Amino acid sequence: MKKLVLAYSGGLDTSYCAKYLSQEEDFEVHAVSVNTGGFSKEEIQSIHQKALALGATTYTSIDAVSTFYEKVVKYLIFGNVLKNNTYPLSVSAERIVQAIEIVNHAKKLGAKYIAHGSTGAGNDQVRFDMIFQIMAPEIEIITPIRDNKLAREEEIEYLQKNGVDYPWEKAKYSINRGLWGTSVGGDETLTSHLPLPDTAYPSQLEKEFSKELKLSFKQGELVAVDGEEGNPVQNIEKLETIASKYAIGRDIHVGDTIIGIKGRVGFEAAAPLIIIKAHHLLEKHTLSKWQQYQKEQLGNFYGMLLHEGNYLDEVMRNIEAFLTDTQKNVTGDVFLSLHPYRFELNGVSSPHDLMNASFGSYGEMNKGWTADDAKGFIKILSNPGKIANHVNQNL
Amino acid sequence: MKKLVLAYSGGLDTSYCAKYLSQEEDFEVHAVSVNTGGFSKEEIQSIHQKALALGATTYTSIDAVSTFYEKVVKYLIFGNVLKNNTYPLSVSAERIVQAIEIVNHAKKLGAKYIAHGSTGAGNDQVRFDMIFQIMAPEIEIITPIRDNKLAREEEIEYLQKNGVDYPWEKAKYSINRGLWGTSVGGDETLTSHLPLPDTAYPSQLEKEFSKELKLSFKQGELVAVDGEEGNPVQNIEKLETIASKYAIGRDIHVGDTIIGIKGRVGFEAAAPLIIIKAHHLLEKHTLSKWQQYQKEQLGNFYGMLLHEGNYLDEVMRNIEAFLTDTQKNVTGDVFLSLHPYRFELNGVSSPHDLMNASFGSYGEMNKGWTADDAKGFIKILSNPGKIANHVNQNL
Amino acid sequence: MKKLVLAYSGGLDTSYCAKYLSQEEDFEVHAVSVNTGGFSKEEIQSIHQKALALGATTYTSIDAVSTFYEKVVKYLIFGNVLKNNTYPLSVSAERIVQAIEIVNHAKKLGAKYIAHGSTGAGNDQVRFDMIFQIMAPEIEIITPIRDNKLAREEEIEYLQKNGVDYPWEKAKYSINRGLWGTSVGGDETLTSHLPLPDTAYPSQLEKEFSKELKLSFKQGELVAVDGEEGNPVQNIEKLETIASKYAIGRDIHVGDTIIGIKGRVGFEAAAPLIIIKAHHLLEKHTLSKWQQYQKEQLGNFYGMLLHEGNYLDEVMRNIEAFLTDTQKNVTGDVFLSLHPYRFELNGVSSPHDLMNASFGSYGEMNKGWTADDAKGFIKILSNPGKIANHVNQNL
Amino acid sequence: MKKLVLAYSGGLDTSYCAKYLSQEEDFEVHAVSVNTGGFSKEEIQSIHQKALALGATTYTSIDAVSTFYEKVVKYLIFGNVLKNNTYPLSVSAERIVQAIEIVNHAKKLGAKYIAHGSTGAGNDQVRFDMIFQIMAPEIEIITPIRDNKLAREEEIEYLQKNGVDYPWEKAKYSINRGLWGTSVGGDETLTSHLPLPDTAYPSQLEKEFSKELKLSFKQGELVAVDGEEGNPVQNIEKLETIASKYAIGRDIHVGDTIIGIKGRVGFEAAAPLIIIKAHHLLEKHTLSKWQQYQKEQLGNFYGMLLHEGNYLDEVMRNIEAFLTDTQKNVTGDVFLSLHPYRFELNGVSSPHDLMNASFGSYGEMNKGWTADDAKGFIKILSNPGKIANHVNQNL
Repeated sequence: MKKLVLAYSGGLDTSYCAKYLSQEEDFEVHAVSVNTGGFSKEEIQSIHQKALALGATTYTSIDAVSTFYEKVVKYLIFGNVLKNNTYPLSVSAERIVQAIEIVNHAKKLGAKYIAHGSTGAGNDQVRFDMIFQIMAPEIEIITPIRDNKLAREEEIEYLQKNGVDYPWEKAKYSINRGLWGTSVGGDETLTSHLPLPDTAYPSQLEKEFSKELKLSFKQGELVAVDGEEGNPVQNIEKLETIASKYAIGRDIHVGDTIIGIKGRVGFEAAAPLIIIKAHHLLEKHTLSKWQQYQKEQLGNFYGMLLHEGNYLDEVMRNIEAFLTDTQKNVTGDVFLSLHPYRFELNGVSSPHDLMNASFGSYGEMNKGWTADDAKGFIKILSNPGKIANHVNQNL
Repeated sequence: MKKLVLAYSGGLDTSYCAKYLSQEEDFEVHAVSVNTGGFSKEEIQSIHQKALALGATTYTSIDAVSTFYEKVVKYLIFGNVLKNNTYPLSVSAERIVQAIEIVNHAKKLGAKYIAHGSTGAGNDQVRFDMIFQIMAPEIEIITPIRDNKLAREEEIEYLQKNGVDYPWEKAKYSINRGLWGTSVGGDETLTSHLPLPDTAYPSQLEKEFSKELKLSFKQGELVAVDGEEGNPVQNIEKLETIASKYAIGRDIHVGDTIIGIKGRVGFEAAAPLIIIKAHHLLEKHTLSKWQQYQKEQLGNFYGMLLHEGNYLDEVMRNIEAFLTDTQKNVTGDVFLSLHPYRFELNGVSSPHDLMNASFGSYGEMNKGWTADDAKGFIKILSNPGKIANHVNQNL
Repeated sequence: MKKLVLAYSGGLDTSYCAKYLSQEEDFEVHAVSVNTGGFSKEEIQSIHQKALALGATTYTSIDAVSTFYEKVVKYLIFGNVLKNNTYPLSVSAERIVQAIEIVNHAKKLGAKYIAHGSTGAGNDQVRFDMIFQIMAPEIEIITPIRDNKLAREEEIEYLQKNGVDYPWEKAKYSINRGLWGTSVGGDETLTSHLPLPDTAYPSQLEKEFSKELKLSFKQGELVAVDGEEGNPVQNIEKLETIASKYAIGRDIHVGDTIIGIKGRVGFEAAAPLIIIKAHHLLEKHTLSKWQQYQKEQLGNFYGMLLHEGNYLDEVMRNIEAFLTDTQKNVTGDVFLSLHPYRFELNGVSSPHDLMNASFGSYGEMNKGWTADDAKGFIKILSNPGKIANHVNQNL
Repeated sequence: MKKLVLAYSGGLDTSYCAKYLSQEEDFEVHAVSVNTGGFSKEEIQSIHQKALALGATTYTSIDAVSTFYEKVVKYLIFGNVLKNNTYPLSVSAERIVQAIEIVNHAKKLGAKYIAHGSTGAGNDQVRFDMIFQIMAPEIEIITPIRDNKLAREEEIEYLQKNGVDYPWEKAKYSINRGLWGTSVGGDETLTSHLPLPDTAYPSQLEKEFSKELKLSFKQGELVAVDGEEGNPVQNIEKLETIASKYAIGRDIHVGDTIIGIKGRVGFEAAAPLIIIKAHHLLEKHTLSKWQQYQKEQLGNFYGMLLHEGNYLDEVMRNIEAFLTDTQKNVTGDVFLSLHPYRFELNGVSSPHDLMNASFGSYGEMNKGWTADDAKGFIKILSNPGKIANHVNQNL
C-alpha cells in the first residue's frame, strides 16, 4: 500500500480526504495535525479518534507552537509586521510552519505522498504545495478537493454513504484559531461593504472597566506581562487571555491573494496587535531614525513574501538576520491600558531610551548646541534648495 | 526704517518679538499670521489688535486653508501618510505653507527682514528658515528668542516694563490647532512614560451612542460626508466637527526631530485619522498589489521629507505626480461607524472595486481557472526554491 | 473557418505554425509581424512572401518603432534602467509592444484565436500570453510548439513533407535585433563560464581611432547627435550606426527568468548603453540627491516588472508619471568619446547644472557659509549618534 | 601644556597645523597618520621626520589597512557598492576608519584636543568631526585651516617665516591614494565639462596585450587571485598591481556633498571596480532574485550613509548583518580578461551556481514542468490584470 501523510484538521474537507484516500485510492493514510496554537487537548483527542475512525492508519499531533514562535512570530514582532497596515498575518504565518512540520513528518515516515484539503482558489494551497515541492520534490501532492472541485454536499453525501455520520452542519462563520490570531470568514466577508456582526467573533466583551498593563520586552521579545515572567509563547497566550475579554483587536483585512484576486477576511488578534504596537512604541524610543526607516521597508517586504508562501527564499533568512540585529537595545517596559474594544499606549521606560537623555528635550533650548550652531545647521541644510532655486529660476 | 515681516501668532514669544523689534531695533514691523485652519474670526481680530498695540505698523491675516489643502494635505491623504504609523504630520505640514505665505508676503512688501519666534531646539526653526533662505536668500532672518535664549519670565518682564500688560499665564498645555489636527504638549510629553490626561485634549467626549457615517471619495479626494457634497476643506471641517465629539483620533507621537533628538507630542486629529484610514481601505479595493506596495514606500518617504522641512526638494513634486496618478480609480463610498474614542471601518462600495468582480471570490473555486492551472502555477512558482534546495543541500 | 492571428517572424518555429495551423487545424491564418526596429524593408518583403507561401491568408507588417519608443524605451532612458546593472532589457521591452500590437490587430480582424511560436521554457510565452489574456480574455491562445514540445528536426521534417523546402540550417547564434539592442544566444550562453566569441556579435569592430561625440538631451529625451537634430528614434538609430562600429556595448546578462530559472544571454547595445550612461551623467548634474535616490529605486522596480511582463499593471503608469516629472530639467549636452570596445563620458554642459553655480565649489571655502556654520551643522548632525553613544555605552 | 592629537598627512595643511599649534597655541602636538593603504614605508618615514621637525612631540603611524578592510571595504564588496553607480567610495570609506583610529589614539594618550586640516567646504570635515564628537564628546576639535580660511600662500608664508622651508609647490593634481582606490582632483574637475587628461592619473598604461585572470571568492571575500591564495587585503593589492598596468578603473564621480553642493572628482580604482563587478556576477549566479533586489536597495543606502559620515548609526551594523548573511553561498571562481583601459567578465564557476542545475536551461523545454503547467502559471499570473481591465474598462 502507498504510504500517504494527510494534513488533517478534523473538518469536513480533510475528513472526506481521510475516508476517500484510504478507501478508494488504496493509500495507507497517516493523518497529522500541527498545532500552532489553535487546538486544546480535548480537540486534539477528538481529532485523533475521528481520524482513526475514518480509516487513517495512524494519527499524529505535532505541537509546533514554540517552533511557530521561533521561526516566524518572533520576526513578525521584530518587524512590526501588519499586512496592509492591518493584519498580523495570523493564518499565513501558521500555514508555513504547518507545511514544514508535515513534510518533515512525511520524510520520517518514508511516505511518498502528502495530501491536503485545500481548494484551488485560496492561498493555502500555494503555501502548502510550495513548501512540499521545495523541501521534498520527490513526494507527490494529492488534493482531492481541489482536483474534483467538490462541493460540501458531495463530500457529506459520500461520507454518509460510507457510514460516517458526524454532524457536518456548516458553521455560520468559519474560524481558524492560532497563537497569532483567529481569522473569521462569513457571508459578509464575501461582500465589500458589510462588516462582520459582533457575534461572529469568538471572543466577546466581558470586561467593562479599563485595566492598566505593563509589557516587558528584552531584545524585542516579550519576557513579562505585568511583571510576571514567562517565555514569549506563554506571555502571548497570557496576554490574549486578558485582552480578548475586552474584544480588542478585531478588524477586517482586505488583501491580494497569491492567486491574484482580492479577498476579505475578518480576524481578532488582541495579543498580536497589542504586542506589535507596544513593541513599535518601544522602538521609537530606542532606535535611530534610519533604523526605523529601513525596518519599515524590510518588515513590509518580509510580510509580503511570508504571506505569499515564499518563506524558504534565502532573502527571508537575510532579513531575519537584519531584524535580529536591530533588536539589541529594544529592551524595556511599555505601559498601556485596555478598554472595551480598544487599547491605549501610555508610554515606555527603557535604559536604552534615546529621548530622556540629559541632552535636553524637544522644544527647550539646551546645552548641546547654541543658536548659532542651529543657524549654521539650517543654512547648510538649505544649500541644495538654494542652489536649485538660483539655477532654475533664472532661466 | 528697516522693513521687517514678523510671523505673528499672538502668543508670548511673537508678542515679545513685535515689541522688541519695533522699539529696540528700529524695525518697521509688519505682522502677519497665516491661518491654516486653526483660527476663528474672533481670534484673528484679537491678534490684529494686539499686533498694532505692540508696535506693528501693519497686520495681515492670510487665509491659507485652501492652499494648505492643495499643496500638502491632499498628498498626505493620497499617500496615507502617518509619520511612524501614528501622526498625521499636523503641525509639520502647516509650517511649510505658513513659511511660503510669509516669504511671499515679505517679497510683496519689499521687506529685507523676516522674523519668527522659534527657539533653537525645535523643528519649526528649520522649516521656517529653510523655506525663507531657499525662496528669498536675499532676506535676512531675525530670531530674537533663539538668539537670546530668552526665558518666558524675561519676555514677560520686558513687556511689562514697556507697558504691555496682557495676562501671559502659561497654559498648562500648549495647543496648536489646524485643519489637519491639533497638537498638545505638556509636562507629560517631556517624559517617556506618562500619557496626557483626558482633560489635556481640547475636544472632549460629548457623544455616547454610535453613529454610522458614509465618506465619499472621488479620485482620492473627500467629496461628500454622509451624502452631503462640499469641497474637500469643508468636508474635512465637517467631519472634524462630527467626529471630535467622540474624542476620536487622540494619540502621542514619538519622533526624531530634525535637530536629531527625540521628541514626544500629543495630538488629536479625528478627521485626519478617519479620512486616511477610510481612504486607505478604499485603495485596498481599487489598487493593484504593486501600487499599494510602492505607495507605502513613497508615502512614508514623502512624510519624512515634509516633516524635515524638505518640501521644496524637487523629488516632492515628482512623488506628488506619482501619487496623483495612483488616484485615478480611487473613487467610491466608505462606510464607517463612530464610537466613543474610536471608529470602525465597515466596508466600501466602488465602481472600481477589484474584489467583487464576477471573477469569483476568495476561497471558492471559480470559472477563471482549473485545479490544473493552479497546480501549474504553484509548480512554476516553486522553481527557484526547488533549484536552490537541490543545489545547496547536496554540497 | 476559424480566424486566427499568428505572430509571425519568418523563422522556423512560426513558419511551422503557419503551415500547420492553416493545413491541419482548419484555421484561417493571418500572419503579422511587428517591427520594433529589427527588420529591414527587404526582410519584411521576404517574410511577407514566405507567410503567404506557407498558407497564410493575409500578411501584415506593423511598424511599431515609434510606439515602442513612446510606450517603453523613453521610460527606460528616464529611469536609467539596466536590469541587474547590465542589460538594457532589449528583448523584454520589445515583446510587450509586439503583444499589444498583435492583440489590437486580432481585435480589428475579429479573430477569435492568436497563435505564437514560443516554447514553454522562456520568458516570451509569459509576456505574450499575459498581455493577450488581459487585453482580450475572449481570444484563445494557440501555441503548437509549446503544446507539442516540438524539436527543430520534427518541425523541419513536417515542413519538408508538406513541400516547404526553405534552408533551415540552424544559425550558430540566435540573434534578436531591435531598436533597443540585439540579443545573442549560443552554446556558450548555456554554460556559466564561457564568454561569447567576438564573432558571435553581429557588429564587428570597424574603427580604430577614437571619436568625440556630443549628445543633446531635452527633458530627458535625445534630441540631437553631434548637433544634428532629429526625433529620438532617428537619433538612437544614428548613434547605433556610429557606435556599433566601435563594437561598444557588448556584455552578457545573467538573470532570473519569470519561470524561475536563471538564464544567460549575450547582447550588443551600443546606443542604449551610451544613451543611458550619458543621460545618467546629465542627471547627476541636474537632479537633487533625493531625486536620484528615488529614481534608482523606482527605475529598478520598473525594469523588473517590465521584464516579467507586468507592463499593464497600473503601477507602471504611476511610475511613468513619476519619471516624466523628474525630467523637467534634464536638458543639456553630454560630451563623450568612443574607443574600440568602450566609451568614456567626458562631461556635460547644461543650463540646469547644479554644480557650477556661483555658490562655490567642492573643496574650496566659499561665501555661502562660514566655518562656524559648518561646525554648527556638523555638531547638530552628530546629535543622534552622540545621544546613542551616551545612552548605550553607560549601561 | 595642552595635549593635542593632530591628524597628520605630511601635506601643507597639516604641516601648517603642526607648526602653528605647537608654536603659537601652546599645544603639545602628537602627530598621527593612519595608513589605509596609501603610504609606503619610505613615505611614512619622511612624514615622521617632518612631523618632529615641525614641532610635534611624538609621531605615530597607525597601520589600519586590515581594519579598513574588515570594518568597511568588506561590506562595500558584499553590497556591490558604487556611489551613483560609479564611484567605489574610496576616500569616503578611508576617512571613517582614520577618524576612528585617531580618536582611539587620542583617548589612549589622554589628549583633550584633536586637530585636523580640513577646510569648511568639503566632506572630510563632516566625517572627521562627527566621529570625533560621537565617540569622544569630551574632546575639543581644533581646525585652524577651516577657522581662519587660510589660503595656501598664507600657510607657506607662515611656515617660511618660521624657518620651515620645504618645497610646497602645488601639484597640478591632488592625489589621495588608499587600498580602495585613488582620487584625483584638478582644474578640470572644477568644471562640469572637462575630463581629466590621461596624464593626471597616477597609473599609466603599461600593458598592450590582454590577460586572462581568475578571481576566487569564498563567502563573498576575495581569497585567491589566479589560484594564488592570500588574505583579502593582499589579494586586493595584488590585483591592483596587475590591473593598474592596464589603466583600468578610471572615471569621474559627480556627487552630492554632505554640505549640499555638487562635486566632481576623478579616480582610478582598478582592483575595486574589478572586484565589485566580479563579485556581482557571482551573485547573479548564486543568489535568488529577491536577494539581489534587496541587496541593491540596501547596498545603495549603506553607501549613501557611509559617504555622509553616518558610519556610526546603528542601522549600518544592521545592514552589515544583512549583507554578511547574504554571502553564505557566494563562493566560486570568476573568469575575466584585462585589456587596455577595460576588462571583460567571461563567466563563473561555482558549486552554488543556481543556473546550471540539472533543472533545465533557459529557452529549452525541460522535465520540471509541462506546457500545461506553464499555461496555468501564466493564466493565474494574469488574474489581477484581467480583473482590473474588466472592472475599469466597462465603466
